[in-house]
Amino acid sequence: MAGKKVLIVYAHQEPKSFNGSLKKVAVEELSKQGCTVTVSDLYSMNFEPRATRNDITGAPSNPDVFSYGIETHEAYKKKALTSDIFEEQRKVQEADLVIFQFPLYWFSVPAILKGWMDRVLCRGFAFDIPGFYDSGFLKGKLALLSLTTGGTAEMYTKDGVSGDFRYFLWPLQHGTLHFCGFKVLAPQISFGLDVSSEEERKVMLASWAQRLKSIWKEEPIHCTPPWYFQE
Amino acid sequence: MAGKKVLIVYAHQEPKSFNGSLKKVAVEELSKQGCTVTVSDLYSMNFEPRATRNDITGAPSNPDVFSYGIETHEAYKKKALTSDIFEEQRKVQEADLVIFQFPLYWFSVPAILKGWMDRVLCRGFAFDIPGFYDSGFLKGKLALLSLTTGGTAEMYTKDGVSGDFRYFLWPLQHGTLHFCGFKVLAPQISFGLDVSSEEERKVMLASWAQRLKSIWKEEPIHCTPPWYFQE
Repeated sequence: MAGKKVLIVYAHQEPKSFNGSLKKVAVEELSKQGCTVTVSDLYSMNFEPRATRNDITGAPSNPDVFSYGIETHEAYKKKALTSDIFEEQRKVQEADLVIFQFPLYWFSVPAILKGWMDRVLCRGFAFDIPGFYDSGFLKGKLALLSLTTGGTAEMYTKDGVSGDFRYFLWPLQHGTLHFCGFKVLAPQISFGLDVSSEEERKVMLASWAQRLKSIWKEEPIHCTPPWYFQE
Repeated sequence: MAGKKVLIVYAHQEPKSFNGSLKKVAVEELSKQGCTVTVSDLYSMNFEPRATRNDITGAPSNPDVFSYGIETHEAYKKKALTSDIFEEQRKVQEADLVIFQFPLYWFSVPAILKGWMDRVLCRGFAFDIPGFYDSGFLKGKLALLSLTTGGTAEMYTKDGVSGDFRYFLWPLQHGTLHFCGFKVLAPQISFGLDVSSEEERKVMLASWAQRLKSIWKEEPIHCTPPWYFQE
């Protein structure tokens, strides 16, 4: 939709990968709609995943015992976080929709993207206590996980060997995105890359492009326990 | 138990933290039993969390399109993974029990520990296809997640605002540890650090030490869907 701003947080090492193609399709389709699209290409940026005292500039508030949560909260308020974190927070703040594009690593995001979440979504910026879940500071924004799996869709069903895909999405969709106040759109899962043909991949790409055409009309999913698991 | 080998993968920045104390208690108690205890202190090691082509030495098998999974599988077989990965694999291989000690970050492990999982538990070493879940290559070993949370135990119940704690443990206990063949012992969760008193922390430390005295007699939990969620 013209005028909307989208941030794509992208975590794949290889531009020629299927994840790279999914990212490219999203940039093209959303730009065509008149959206402003920004991409954080984490591997190209060599994004730092480790949460350490290097994330704050200046003296820590407690020089004796380092608590990452306390120190980054203080640093956020004093504008004393490092510039790479600040820059990502600026992109999130401007975005109407944040799309995360990644291959599933161990039922979750790759460490480089986990580090983006650990470091960028800090207390004071993304939430406070109180000030989380429906009151999270990023309320009013949309988020969407677009991921690829090696395993097939059948493996990720309730009685499949890996369980319902919503089980592994719980820490991300509820514990992270909903916690920060995002409204979460249904995930875009490109299943079974280990066994898919070129033709099947083309279909998956086309279906992602097609979905994006009407993405702004979608209703968010419900992320609240215990409802989430009973659907 | 005398003669047993334990690896503690530890992910906290501050030795004086409660996580540091939990780690120390485990080293002391297990050493007292006659176990050989090794600690991988990830922040002290400045452990690399990013999964990149730097993880393989020598030429990639496909110089045109980089697939992390394919290249690290090949490199494992050729003994061409970087030495930091190889060293961690050696520690895992020798261990009877692997304990992960960490603070919960976004319903999951901190990125530095996620990177340990992404990079160390590679195909060929920890699993193959086929050769996962009950046939994972680390079968015969035990694993245990020992974690701290800011939120209280009440928040992590089925009807609590953050849902049953087993929901967020799913990707770790089933999707990662069980996938690699580990038998998973019940998690040790030290809840509510944001609101706990010194006295309550002492009780939590003592209860961890007490549990470790009979840890070798414990039966593993069930990690299979859909049973896991229906208990």
